Parts: sequence; C-alpha cells; structure tokens
Amino acid sequence: MCELLGIASKIATDVDFSFTFKGFAMRGGQTGPHADGWGVSLYEGPFARTFLEPRPAYGSALARFLRDNPIHASVVVAHVRKMTVGQAAIENTHPFVRVFHHRHITFAHNGTLPNVHKIPLAYESTVGTTDSEHSFCVMLERLHKLYPHEYPKDPLELGRRLFEIGNELGEDGVFNFLFSDGEYLYARCGDNLSLITRQAPFGNATLVDTDVTVQLADMLDPEQRVVIVATEPLTRETEWQKATPGTLWVIGHGDLVETFRNN
Amino acid sequence: MCELLGIASKIATDVDFSFTFKGFAMRGGQTGPHADGWGVSLYEGPFARTFLEPRPAYGSALARFLRDNPIHASVVVAHVRKMTVGQAAIENTHPFVRVFHHRHITFAHNGTLPNVHKIPLAYESTVGTTDSEHSFCVMLERLHKLYPHEYPKDPLELGRRLFEIGNELGEDGVFNFLFSDGEYLYARCGDNLSLITRQAPFGNATLVDTDVTVQLADMLDPEQRVVIVATEPLTRETEWQKATPGTLWVIGHGDLVETFRNN
Repeated sequence: MCELLGIASKIATDVDFSFTFKGFAMRGGQTGPHADGWGVSLYEGPFARTFLEPRPAYGSALARFLRDNPIHASVVVAHVRKMTVGQAAIENTHPFVRVFHHRHITFAHNGTLPNVHKIPLAYESTVGTTDSEHSFCVMLERLHKLYPHEYPKDPLELGRRLFEIGNELGEDGVFNFLFSDGEYLYARCGDNLSLITRQAPFGNATLVDTDVTVQLADMLDPEQRVVIVATEPLTRETEWQKATPGTLWVIGHGDLVETFRNN
Repeated sequence: MCELLGIASKIATDVDFSFTFKGFAMRGGQTGPHADGWGVSLYEGPFARTFLEPRPAYGSALARFLRDNPIHASVVVAHVRKMTVGQAAIENTHPFVRVFHHRHITFAHNGTLPNVHKIPLAYESTVGTTDSEHSFCVMLERLHKLYPHEYPKDPLELGRRLFEIGNELGEDGVFNFLFSDGEYLYARCGDNLSLITRQAPFGNATLVDTDVTVQLADMLDPEQRVVIVATEPLTRETEWQKATPGTLWVIGHGDLVETFRNN
C-alpha cells in the first residue's frame, strides 16, 4: 500500500507543499514503511513538472533539492510507494503522466486492482508493470472516447465520469486515486482518504510525523485558501474529514467544489 | 535556433554526460545565446527521467543538482533552447516525451517547420505551442499506424521509416532532430549535426566552450564505447564528422549502426 497527497490552492505557492511534504516524505522510509519510491507532480499551468525516484523519499537528494529550490504550483499530486504489484523501479513510480487535449494528466493510486490488466488497451500503453498505470491508461481511453475532440469544459461533468469509472474499476479491489489536469484535482476514496480546507483566520498546524508546528498565518497569504487530501491526516488539526468509500471529490482553486457519493 | 546533444554508450555511465554537459550547458546563456530553456532525458531502461527548465542552463540549480547527483544512463537526449516559435515556458522546453508501446519516446528538435501545425492530429496532442512538439506528435501518429500492435523489432527498419518521415516533414523547413526509445538514438541532420565515436585507446578531450581538458582514459572504462551527436562539435577532437543534410544516423550501444542518406 502507498500514501497519496494532493494539494489544490487558490494562489500558486510552494508553502503548503514544502511544509506538508516534510511530514509526507518521512513516511517514505522513516515513520512509515513506504520506502520503495516516491514522486511528485507540480503543475505550472498545463504542464506537470514531475520528479520521481525508486528509492525512499526520506534522505533523498532529489527531495532535498525540491525543498531547497521550491517550485510554485497551485496543484500538487504526490505519492510514496510501498510496492505490492511491480518491482521498485522508476517506471513503476507514481504519479504517472500522459497528455490529453493540451494538458498533462497526472494519476497516483493507492490500492490494488488485481484484474484490471485484463482490460485491453487500444492506443495507450504502460511503461511499467503496475495495475495502477494500467488502470490510468484504461481511464484515459474511456475519456478519449467520451471527449474525442476537446477537453471537457465542465469539471463537474468530468467529475461525474470519473466517479462512474471509479465505481466500475473499484469493484475489482481497492481504488483510492488522485487524478488532475492542473486546474482541478479529482480525488477518489476506495477505503481511505481524508481532506482538510484551510482559510483565514489560520491557526496552528503540527505535523503528525514529526514535532514541527507552524503558525499557518505566518506562512500563508491571508487571501489563500487551500485544500489538502491525503491517505491519512498529516497534521493534528481536528478539521480533517474522512471520506466514505466510493466518494469522489472535485477540488479546485482552494475549494471543495463537489462531492459525488454512492446513494 | 537551438542545440542538440545525444549520447549512446555501450555501458551505462554518467561520465560522458557530466563532462560533455559542462560545455553544452555553457551554451545555454554563457558562451552561446541559447538562454530560453534546457532539458535532458536520461534513460533508465525504457523510462526517460526528464529534467526541464525554461531558464538558462548556465547557473541553473537543477543543472548543478544533476552534476552533483549524476544518474547512470546509456542513452541521453539533451537540448538548449533559443526560442523561435512559442514563448519561453516549461511546456515548450525539449525533450518532449510520450509513451509508445511500453517505452518512453523522447524527441528534441533544432530548426523550424513553419507549416507542420497544418497537419491535423487524431489522438496525440501538444501541451505547448511549438512546431517541434507538433511535428513529434505527427511522427508518433505515423508510427502508431505503421506499428499498431507492438514496437518495431528492427532498429534499421524504424530508422528507415524515420528517415522517410524526416525527409517529408523536412521539406517544410529545418529539421534536425534526436529521437530515442532508450535503446537506440535516431539522429537526423537537417542542416547541422556532427558525430564522434570514442573507444579505446582513448586520448585527450578539450571542451570547445571552456578550457577544461580531460584524459578520457582516466574517465572511461576500457570496454566503453560511446557515440556523441551534437549540433556543433563540443570538443576540439579532430574526429568529429559532419553529416550531409537529410542524413539519418541510427546509433545504439556505442556504435553508429547505420547511416541513411539521400542518393
């Protein structure tokens, strides 16, 4: 199993990521067992700058480089990996990235879909050997059929499609995922996903994985609003809400825009 | 105009890249005018670890990180950019990367194809606004039609296809390119491309762009063989050979395997 981290903020910044990633990265080999790789996609407009390593995030020179040379982004998709399917190799490291109608789509998965590889692919192709990348390719081919000429303009319509595809593929196993186009973040709960919204007036935040506490008001623009999604709450703030299985959240510009739920 | 650098060596190493990139990176804003971005793809098997920046390579923290934390690769595709079409933005920075039959394909272009955007795309899509990325997408769609089910097994056959596509698209303008699948490097000369092969017994090499001289024998495994392709020779070695316009070189495992030429 793995851990997911997604951030969608109103104002592009590196602050939320730098702080949150500190705790998150510790789960990659220090406080957690997720030592088989890590990756992060940081969106600059439609382009996802993606950094991946098939080694623990904790102690990584590349993770340190990202902390020392922060990149501004309003949407971030990150993942630390404990391998279940596919060996520890760069090509099996999340997020996966593909191009769809003039933007990078990024995808990170927590869970296992044991039979998804039986769904054939017509055009898309995996580089690695994970069920996760295969499921991403299946989703992209579905979206290409639904939207052959241009990207869906309505994020709620796309959210509903991803909710439906998520329900369908999720019948096969555990399917927590983050899917983003750089503007919106679509987060599905298979069995484990939590969310927090931060806006002024900001309080304190203490990382769960280390003793660091920050005054959020000192770090964040008063106009900032940010939504953080993670497998497990990363801070001791009490406002984290846990999704019920099957939920798909549509998040953008610092807001939880829509929640799709079964029944 | 831009500059291209491709390396294909018998033994995966970081030595050739670290040394050669030193001179190459200087052309990105120091000894050359190519200050609008740079990028490099380093293959680990079928996966191209790709680092891009829409800023000069010279003085870049990311370029310094790559020098300080070298990554072993047998195939490298690199580019420094002086923009002609499309603004200085991360999405317009080469190499471009797509997935085709279980491997990353990387592509970097030097030149301009003013009319290539008139060729419609059915499935592939650009993220940025360059003629270069569009021409890459056109090439990929052609290859998908020629090889719908699996990757071409014979690099010479693929080389001939790329030679033909190169001739066709190249009628529109200047089309120097590097195209790689991680095993072979396909290098086309539109108007300017040079190549050198190094093997034991190794001599000296002095960078053109700076005074650094190295004893290659001190750096390279005696079993090593390496082919370097570049827009302009990067060292003062006399063995650099210049291609005639229209030439396509197929390079792999440290050998120049085939040369396709018009007439």
